[in-house]
Amino acid sequence: MEVFAVEGLPEVQPGDDVARLVVEQTDLRDGDVVCIASTVVSKAAGRQADLDDYAPGEQARRIADAIGSVTGERKDPRFAQAVVEESEEILTEAPFVLAVTRFGHITVNAGIDRSNVPDADLLLLPEDPTVSAAQLRADIRERAGVDVAVIVTDTSGRPFRLGQRGVALGWAGIPAARDWRGEHDREGRELSATVQAVVDELAAAANLVTGEGAGGTPVAVVREFAFGDHDDSDALYREEDSDVVREALREWSL
Amino acid sequence: MEVFAVEGLPEVQPGDDVARLVVEQTDLRDGDVVCIASTVVSKAAGRQADLDDYAPGEQARRIADAIGSVTGERKDPRFAQAVVEESEEILTEAPFVLAVTRFGHITVNAGIDRSNVPDADLLLLPEDPTVSAAQLRADIRERAGVDVAVIVTDTSGRPFRLGQRGVALGWAGIPAARDWRGEHDREGRELSATVQAVVDELAAAANLVTGEGAGGTPVAVVREFAFGDHDDSDALYREEDSDVVREALREWSL
Repeated sequence: MEVFAVEGLPEVQPGDDVARLVVEQTDLRDGDVVCIASTVVSKAAGRQADLDDYAPGEQARRIADAIGSVTGERKDPRFAQAVVEESEEILTEAPFVLAVTRFGHITVNAGIDRSNVPDADLLLLPEDPTVSAAQLRADIRERAGVDVAVIVTDTSGRPFRLGQRGVALGWAGIPAARDWRGEHDREGRELSATVQAVVDELAAAANLVTGEGAGGTPVAVVREFAFGDHDDSDALYREEDSDVVREALREWSL
Repeated sequence: MEVFAVEGLPEVQPGDDVARLVVEQTDLRDGDVVCIASTVVSKAAGRQADLDDYAPGEQARRIADAIGSVTGERKDPRFAQAVVEESEEILTEAPFVLAVTRFGHITVNAGIDRSNVPDADLLLLPEDPTVSAAQLRADIRERAGVDVAVIVTDTSGRPFRLGQRGVALGWAGIPAARDWRGEHDREGRELSATVQAVVDELAAAANLVTGEGAGGTPVAVVREFAFGDHDDSDALYREEDSDVVREALREWSL
């Protein structure tokens, strides 16, 4: 399996044809997994926003105050309002805002980006990254005649472990997970491992070669990844009733 | 960057020289990142155990009962005792046991494996995976004359997202994380992304090519990964006082 960054992509503008930009810079092959940073998808989709677009409501003002009293640095209530508007639920208000996005991803500040945004204060996540992935996949097929998988990626922190790692937000042309249930180990025992979130692992692999900074490139290709002959699953975000940690956070923050 | 599984490894026995087994099956190069499943490290270190080795104490019996009353299927209190003995702290007792291992990793059942264990009921995680990684790295240098990084890996579930993914338990010859703080994006804005847990991303990439089942191989190599010119950090496990989720779980489970 090979993982490489796509070099030479221009800064993406609202309305840009991202699939065309990608296929102009690299020769894709059938079976490639094209990992595209959500920042690029959002920029092309015009998901830039300014702080002045947001009129803070009661919850946003409460969040800004709560973070201020914990950290000593008050958050801009307009930013808090942007997070509230992008979220289906706010799990914690302080010391940081952990939010459930409308498409199910749980992350700090609903994934709103304050860096890497030319000519705007904020960059929101794509509205539905799986829809974006499917569209990009269809566009790549049309532009280059190849059948690839597409993963819309982000970087995100996580409980228990420090640091961020690449995660999948949306995907098309590949299932989210390999399902090993019912398969057996070398000795014939049933495996205790159950479901392997391959799209997250592919996003993590891509993040190793793309980088974040001025030299970073937002698109990487994983070539010759073999999904293999396994059952599959397309679920990646836990439902509320199977998520003990979400339940604990909700009760804790009351 | 290239990622490939090391084929042809024999079933590892207590006392085996894992470094020798690996270098006999593949030509390693300077700079390779060798990702070795913790199962292999544990087997060589004799970390097999039997349920009858464990005399259930009060907490283990309570855990077995609590899981039984939630799931309808009582857990073996001897297994619960093994988890308790391998843990520094139990964060949740039911519906599953989320435990902090002595080396800081937080995972279900303290990572004790009930599959893939010939001639024993259980396989415990290595006592200190970073010590194991350093030893394996030194052994590989001695056996093959190459300077590699070693990551001892496992698969683990996580909050919010379904499925398991590869994670690093211990590492040597590479920092745990790239630290982007103070670096800037294309427009000169300071990056909001902070620390990238590269050893976890490498473990995830490795897990894409190794697999879990009878056809799985427990060792993978990542070749031509470039850490790059960044600050680094060797912290991967959150300290208690910076872990809101751990705090919430502890209070929730009281």
